[in-house]
Amino acid sequence: MAQEPSNDLFSKVTKTAGKHSPLEEAIRKLPLPVTSVFLGKDGKIRPAVFRETGMTLVCKGHERIAEVFPKTIAKSRSIILEAIPRGEAAPVRGKRVGVLFSGGPAAGGHNVLAGLSAALNGDNELFGIRKGPKGLINADVFQIRPHDIQTILNLGGFDFLGTDRTKIKTPEQFEKVKETVLKNKLDGLVIVGGDDSNTNAAFIAEYFETEGVNCCVIGIPKTIDGDMAAGNYLPISFGFDTATKIFSELVGNLNQDAASAVKYYHVVKLMGRTASKITLEVALQTKPAVTLISEEIAEKDMSLGQIVDYIVHIITERRKIGINHGVILVPEGLVEFIPEMKRLIGELNTVLAEYEKDVKDLPTLQNKQEFIYPHLSPPSAQVMASLPDEIQEMLILDRDDHGNVKVSQIETEKLLIEKIRYRISEMKRHPDKFFGEGGDRIEATAQQIADFQKLSLSTQSHFLGYEGRSSKPTRFDAAFTFLLGLTAGSLVLAGKTGYMAAVTNFDKGGRILALPLAGLVTSEMRKGKEEFVIEKSLVKLDSPSFTVFAENRERWAMQDLFSSPGAIQYWGPTSRQIPLIVALDQGYADFGTFNLGEEREIKID
Amino acid sequence: MAQEPSNDLFSKVTKTAGKHSPLEEAIRKLPLPVTSVFLGKDGKIRPAVFRETGMTLVCKGHERIAEVFPKTIAKSRSIILEAIPRGEAAPVRGKRVGVLFSGGPAAGGHNVLAGLSAALNGDNELFGIRKGPKGLINADVFQIRPHDIQTILNLGGFDFLGTDRTKIKTPEQFEKVKETVLKNKLDGLVIVGGDDSNTNAAFIAEYFETEGVNCCVIGIPKTIDGDMAAGNYLPISFGFDTATKIFSELVGNLNQDAASAVKYYHVVKLMGRTASKITLEVALQTKPAVTLISEEIAEKDMSLGQIVDYIVHIITERRKIGINHGVILVPEGLVEFIPEMKRLIGELNTVLAEYEKDVKDLPTLQNKQEFIYPHLSPPSAQVMASLPDEIQEMLILDRDDHGNVKVSQIETEKLLIEKIRYRISEMKRHPDKFFGEGGDRIEATAQQIADFQKLSLSTQSHFLGYEGRSSKPTRFDAAFTFLLGLTAGSLVLAGKTGYMAAVTNFDKGGRILALPLAGLVTSEMRKGKEEFVIEKSLVKLDSPSFTVFAENRERWAMQDLFSSPGAIQYWGPTSRQIPLIVALDQGYADFGTFNLGEEREIKID
Repeated sequence: MAQEPSNDLFSKVTKTAGKHSPLEEAIRKLPLPVTSVFLGKDGKIRPAVFRETGMTLVCKGHERIAEVFPKTIAKSRSIILEAIPRGEAAPVRGKRVGVLFSGGPAAGGHNVLAGLSAALNGDNELFGIRKGPKGLINADVFQIRPHDIQTILNLGGFDFLGTDRTKIKTPEQFEKVKETVLKNKLDGLVIVGGDDSNTNAAFIAEYFETEGVNCCVIGIPKTIDGDMAAGNYLPISFGFDTATKIFSELVGNLNQDAASAVKYYHVVKLMGRTASKITLEVALQTKPAVTLISEEIAEKDMSLGQIVDYIVHIITERRKIGINHGVILVPEGLVEFIPEMKRLIGELNTVLAEYEKDVKDLPTLQNKQEFIYPHLSPPSAQVMASLPDEIQEMLILDRDDHGNVKVSQIETEKLLIEKIRYRISEMKRHPDKFFGEGGDRIEATAQQIADFQKLSLSTQSHFLGYEGRSSKPTRFDAAFTFLLGLTAGSLVLAGKTGYMAAVTNFDKGGRILALPLAGLVTSEMRKGKEEFVIEKSLVKLDSPSFTVFAENRERWAMQDLFSSPGAIQYWGPTSRQIPLIVALDQGYADFGTFNLGEEREIKID
Repeated sequence: MAQEPSNDLFSKVTKTAGKHSPLEEAIRKLPLPVTSVFLGKDGKIRPAVFRETGMTLVCKGHERIAEVFPKTIAKSRSIILEAIPRGEAAPVRGKRVGVLFSGGPAAGGHNVLAGLSAALNGDNELFGIRKGPKGLINADVFQIRPHDIQTILNLGGFDFLGTDRTKIKTPEQFEKVKETVLKNKLDGLVIVGGDDSNTNAAFIAEYFETEGVNCCVIGIPKTIDGDMAAGNYLPISFGFDTATKIFSELVGNLNQDAASAVKYYHVVKLMGRTASKITLEVALQTKPAVTLISEEIAEKDMSLGQIVDYIVHIITERRKIGINHGVILVPEGLVEFIPEMKRLIGELNTVLAEYEKDVKDLPTLQNKQEFIYPHLSPPSAQVMASLPDEIQEMLILDRDDHGNVKVSQIETEKLLIEKIRYRISEMKRHPDKFFGEGGDRIEATAQQIADFQKLSLSTQSHFLGYEGRSSKPTRFDAAFTFLLGLTAGSLVLAGKTGYMAAVTNFDKGGRILALPLAGLVTSEMRKGKEEFVIEKSLVKLDSPSFTVFAENRERWAMQDLFSSPGAIQYWGPTSRQIPLIVALDQGYADFGTFNLGEEREIKID
């Protein structure tokens, strides 16, 4: 080689492989806070025990739910439990606890394992179930050694166990789960997942009670979307803080880029299948020019055209004051919240199910369109016809296993860009129709209109998602998940089943709760079939977080008051923030520093 | 609203708007290191003066260059200058210095302004030129107040001035530049830009000398691509460290995501128009399954098919040991480094220029293809025919103002994904042709082949670019740019013209140099026309950085030894890293901590 290195830097760089980057090495050593209920008098971590609170948890249609979960509801009486220090009680020994990840990764999963391991405390054994629910069915189980936990402490991803999205539904699958539990003599099963996985956990708990399987089932609330939450009992799920901080970093950078290059509108779609909580948090963090919130659009019954008008209106008003750049945030789940689009998709699902073979047999997209249009209602046909061909093609051809439109695949950001471009070019050609007085017209001077006609609109589309799921957890998520693990471990040792571990009071040292899973489940009719689901926690339009956003968004847009909150910090003055929507909606005094107990070095052995 | 907040959190959140996020507030206060030549005996920052070194800088074809830049070369004698402390010399007063940003944003631009302002030291005045070279032509000039500098210190983006990509070429434009300088009585002009902008700076310096305009022109090396560099004199341009750290964070997260979800290959295209330096640095930081380096592909004369085979080979070998996920890094500029693609694009440019009207008149893509194919050489026609229709359409229809293919717009990552999918499905249908002994066949047991045929390949494409340009600078880039600004300011005060500010010895307190701009410029024949350019600094295949990569990549792939280096840290043990390729190629002992002088609080007033 040209320059023979005169030092050992080669080997230093080589040694950073396999998760030994300088940050990974340093982060493993970060201390974690521990809520006082988990501390013995000797200051060591130990499992907590539980007492009943005066609070119960039931969902709408509880009578129906009580029929489906008779055993676990009889046992819990829907009462929320609260952790208290174990005190003088003898430690529980000899229990075997299995744990699995389910669904998409979220930051902090590995600290759930660390918390579990710390609760089991060497007196009990922890088993990992590989590749999610599929591993539970296939009995893909191995013992987790404390040493392994130390290597993944505070690191991101779900890769220590892997994950998958198998839904446990059939009697055969339940039978297999039972076999795995019996074969491995598991006294506890901890399922780390979102709403579907926790619904599954509720069913498995009930099934074990019915079958006399002596294994406690505990759920842990995970989802970057933040829609697995229960008000003051559980302000948020884990992974939300990290994902929104990553997205806010990137959106903040794009804000700064837009203002620097002074020519682009960056249109950013943000992961979040249903709720717009991610988008709301990112908007509060970054103050972009335009933010769409699905829940508001549904509430106001806005059409696609009205959404485009809203965006174009802001772009035009900004142009009038010389700003021809900015950031537009679009929640991933938007399309299903636009009433006319939802209707269209519903009709398409019906038509395509009924005429599946006919549609398949028609050779070209155009043939398929000609066949389908007459089967739609006129309003839906008009909406369909207004969509770009690629989107129509996707709606017709890209179906999931149940024959439904894959809504998450729709490139909403590109659809909006195309519609915005059409509208702006129309405005340039027919300024008299859009500017002037009366109706929805935009007030503008002749000079402003002339300026508008001269400027071009440059757009860049982005989709932020996967980058945010597997990041190293923020200090907040690292602490939150360690406590969730301690809670789940304590619940199993206390012989509790059918609960979800929960942490609240992030500003006051942490309060540890156990929420009866069946109390979270509700019954819904979907396509004439009853489905049991944990209701997703959506953005509430009367919440403090939405209110701050709604009160400020026009000012942000018209004064270009963006912020760029920057990369997640693990050290320094900004490393302990609480998500803004949590701090606002929980009524905390500040968002700058969480308080979940005293910090201590974590040694798992 | 539902929950009336009982505290002032509403106003706290509201106050974070307009670049007052907690991180932005904290980062403004971070101290910066100052190389000793810029420190007076009182410890205060002051401009340096310069002496000649024994080193000269000339490019290939220097005789021709000497004809084009007679005045500045006569003045500099191509000798590199070095900064020394001003000592007892009297301070220079009353100078007026203008500064502009040119080209894409890069992190640290604002600290260049801070360094300039600190060098001018209240005794001289700093003027900002808005929106890049266009502002220089249009005399869009304003005085920068020290107070403004304090608000942007350590922050990202170019938004304080804006930027654009206007090239100053015509005599009328040069005349306008002169007018702006004379009208604003500028004694110095600092141009912050990449290779094109610094070539421009060289020409403006020469023009001013010829015209007797008494204004020093200084260039500052900016580009996230890292290709504006000059060996040991200037190891890297500013913005590279920050951009690669952002990209490494995200690629690291995708590595972790791939291993967690255990089903995806994430195919990531990384910004970097020509050199693969960004991709090499990100690969060294993250250790992905596959990394393509354009310079290596050109050197080995690899075809598109061979590149696909290389990737598929690694995917297959990983599958054999149970790994069905990973990350594939693709440099943005790849296509132009694949010899057969470069030939095809060259031929297309010629054909489409010659038959511009014919091609335009043909209504459909197919018509155009039928017309064009006979005009290509048979090998190029075959390459063209092997490309997906979208790519062919782009090659034929999407031309820049000079009628050339917009190579940067080619969705290389999607092209590769399609080709990889075709090849893998071919291998599944005809395992006998691809597995077994002899030729390029892959050794595999019957079981491994059966496993291969069962697995599906899920891919997600990503493009990382804009997110990395306008981030807050890393501690390294913040320090580097502040010193570049101090250097440029000192050069103007010392009456030097036609130099580029440079910093080297990042590990030894910093060494401040001034490189004669004309010594960086070389002459090239492009389409029969002479062009003057600063040669881009590409990845050298015999460099230590490429060597470490090449020696380790197979091990990273086959043992899935990815790292996830995490978010940029501004505090804590990992906040002062040097880019790996710089540390390796400069022969530093470590990359963990830069040393650019003693840190001090920066007060600009």
